[in-house]
Amino acid sequence: MERAKLDRSSETVEVEWSAGGVDWFPYVWLRDNCQCSECFQVDLNKRLVLTSRLDLDVAPDHANVQDRGSTLHVTWPDGHRSQYDWQWLRDRCFSPQARADRETRWRRKKQLWGAELFTNLPTADFPALLSDDRALYDFLFLLDTIGLVLVQNVPRQPGQFLQLANRVAFPKMTFLGSCPEVPLFIAQQVQMMHCIKQTESEGGASELVDAFNAAYQLKQENPDAFKLLTTVKVNFHRIGKAEPKHHMKERHHIISISDKGEVQKVVCGKHSRDSVLDVPLDQVKPFYRAMRAFDDILAHPRNCIRYKMKEGDILAFDNLRVLHDRTAFSLSGGERHLQVGYVDWDETYSRMRVLQAELGIQE
Amino acid sequence: MERAKLDRSSETVEVEWSAGGVDWFPYVWLRDNCQCSECFQVDLNKRLVLTSRLDLDVAPDHANVQDRGSTLHVTWPDGHRSQYDWQWLRDRCFSPQARADRETRWRRKKQLWGAELFTNLPTADFPALLSDDRALYDFLFLLDTIGLVLVQNVPRQPGQFLQLANRVAFPKMTFLGSCPEVPLFIAQQVQMMHCIKQTESEGGASELVDAFNAAYQLKQENPDAFKLLTTVKVNFHRIGKAEPKHHMKERHHIISISDKGEVQKVVCGKHSRDSVLDVPLDQVKPFYRAMRAFDDILAHPRNCIRYKMKEGDILAFDNLRVLHDRTAFSLSGGERHLQVGYVDWDETYSRMRVLQAELGIQE
Repeated sequence: MERAKLDRSSETVEVEWSAGGVDWFPYVWLRDNCQCSECFQVDLNKRLVLTSRLDLDVAPDHANVQDRGSTLHVTWPDGHRSQYDWQWLRDRCFSPQARADRETRWRRKKQLWGAELFTNLPTADFPALLSDDRALYDFLFLLDTIGLVLVQNVPRQPGQFLQLANRVAFPKMTFLGSCPEVPLFIAQQVQMMHCIKQTESEGGASELVDAFNAAYQLKQENPDAFKLLTTVKVNFHRIGKAEPKHHMKERHHIISISDKGEVQKVVCGKHSRDSVLDVPLDQVKPFYRAMRAFDDILAHPRNCIRYKMKEGDILAFDNLRVLHDRTAFSLSGGERHLQVGYVDWDETYSRMRVLQAELGIQE
Repeated sequence: MERAKLDRSSETVEVEWSAGGVDWFPYVWLRDNCQCSECFQVDLNKRLVLTSRLDLDVAPDHANVQDRGSTLHVTWPDGHRSQYDWQWLRDRCFSPQARADRETRWRRKKQLWGAELFTNLPTADFPALLSDDRALYDFLFLLDTIGLVLVQNVPRQPGQFLQLANRVAFPKMTFLGSCPEVPLFIAQQVQMMHCIKQTESEGGASELVDAFNAAYQLKQENPDAFKLLTTVKVNFHRIGKAEPKHHMKERHHIISISDKGEVQKVVCGKHSRDSVLDVPLDQVKPFYRAMRAFDDILAHPRNCIRYKMKEGDILAFDNLRVLHDRTAFSLSGGERHLQVGYVDWDETYSRMRVLQAELGIQE
């Protein structure tokens, strides 16, 4: 920073950057975000002083740049002194450009894929995931950005998923327990399928599609269909009559988008979609046409990967993004033994942030 | 139903009700939702026939009302026959009124409250909750509609929350385990606090506010502030440096509303709100004023309950709605021993639906 001055009319501190340009930081925001050890616990990113006790009309007595341009010093009327690192301030600019940049950085960019991913399937080594933090981070990074990772060299015994889940966070308990043998219809967040025994018959391959990619294709090819699938709310049920009995119910769009238009979640629920359909009469057939248009894109060979899991594979995928189905197989080829487990994204991201800090990874 | 006829131009079956009035049901929707045992598994609410294989231009050969007006019979060109119960159809009408009614029925109506609830605090008896399904349902109903229930007669030993959680669904695993002694800052969904030992000093009372009620008051008193708190996205962090290390991060509005304007979630996170603030410069002070206006309503005596938990109490509340704080207490009054646990709403609602069906409860 070159210099700082108080702008009484706009109630901001004006900061002139060494590299050129000017930014303004409001008085009340600066006071609220004082980084001193009385006001803020840096390592926990935790406020110690309550905003509800703040004088909203507070104005500094002085503000100036010290330490060869690296620190903004502010003195408040009650004698309290605050210091702000230049990079910390720079990361919190209020300019439209800075705010737009932060918005795009909030989530990692997804790498969309189609059938071509098959020849370059992201993989991870199970023993490495259990012992090597960097391998674990790389696995989670692929799971986040590509949405699909094939974990190899997994022992062919039940319960292996739990070991991997415990390295990430903890397995999500569900009505089917923490490690059931059939997937849930109501979409959980990260799904991991462990192939303990594969059928020897012809079928039984997993079909995988990047539904985010398909959704963006739909938006291009058929904007009206995209509009319907992102605005009509649909109910989904999952009912279990055997113990543990359950009746889960969700209501959301088939394609969920953020307020910036980014696709965030796709749930088709072909078996669990409810018969209640809350659209005007003249939108019913267009809605069916929209679902069909999306189905056609999802099923298009350019978008589909077909992979028959090998014994000792775990297929880990983003269950809010990657649609998974399997081709029919005949039981004459022998039994198939899978175990399925789930982890939440919140906790997966938390683990990534901790690993990033510990391993010193810059993105 | 009085009679049914095919309307070829709108591709609907027109149904005339015995009580008067007419509704129309689209051909494609009727075919998609055939309730016969080949097409649909009623007890699991599960589709057996894939919508992706449906002829979207399908039109019935015949439709008529039989069984003294109770059933609509439809015959399709391939010979398939469908039957629809009149009440089932009535519950799925496409009229604007019917759709609006269903929208309001999707969630139970919340009963807003203020300080007056203190004299009429919803209570439940712990031993009854463990053994009596109706008592459990009533408890969950209060938790959903009022958002706060005082469970009494709980043994004063650790781990009691787990027994109650297992009656609902299962305790939510968190970074602090399933039954930690301090609450999480990142809002979990249903929170239960078990008071094992209470301080004998003056303070230590729980302060509880219905933040949905407060949010609607803000909307009335200060629509601009309400607008800001429902549109500005704020980041929240929770970082733990001790094992199990974690770094949770959320980004959402302080007051979240549905597309119908209903308040759905309030998170203030006074300690966990991040210093990054993504609003234009001239909105910073208005945003602080909006937070202050909301704080003032939340802290107003007309809205606050103050209750000092007794040993053997579990305070169960909707953590997305009821804000909880405690008054300061001096350690000279002796130690205070609480255990805190969480359950998810999805699973709580699932349990309520199962109990409703088993107990034959009509709402």
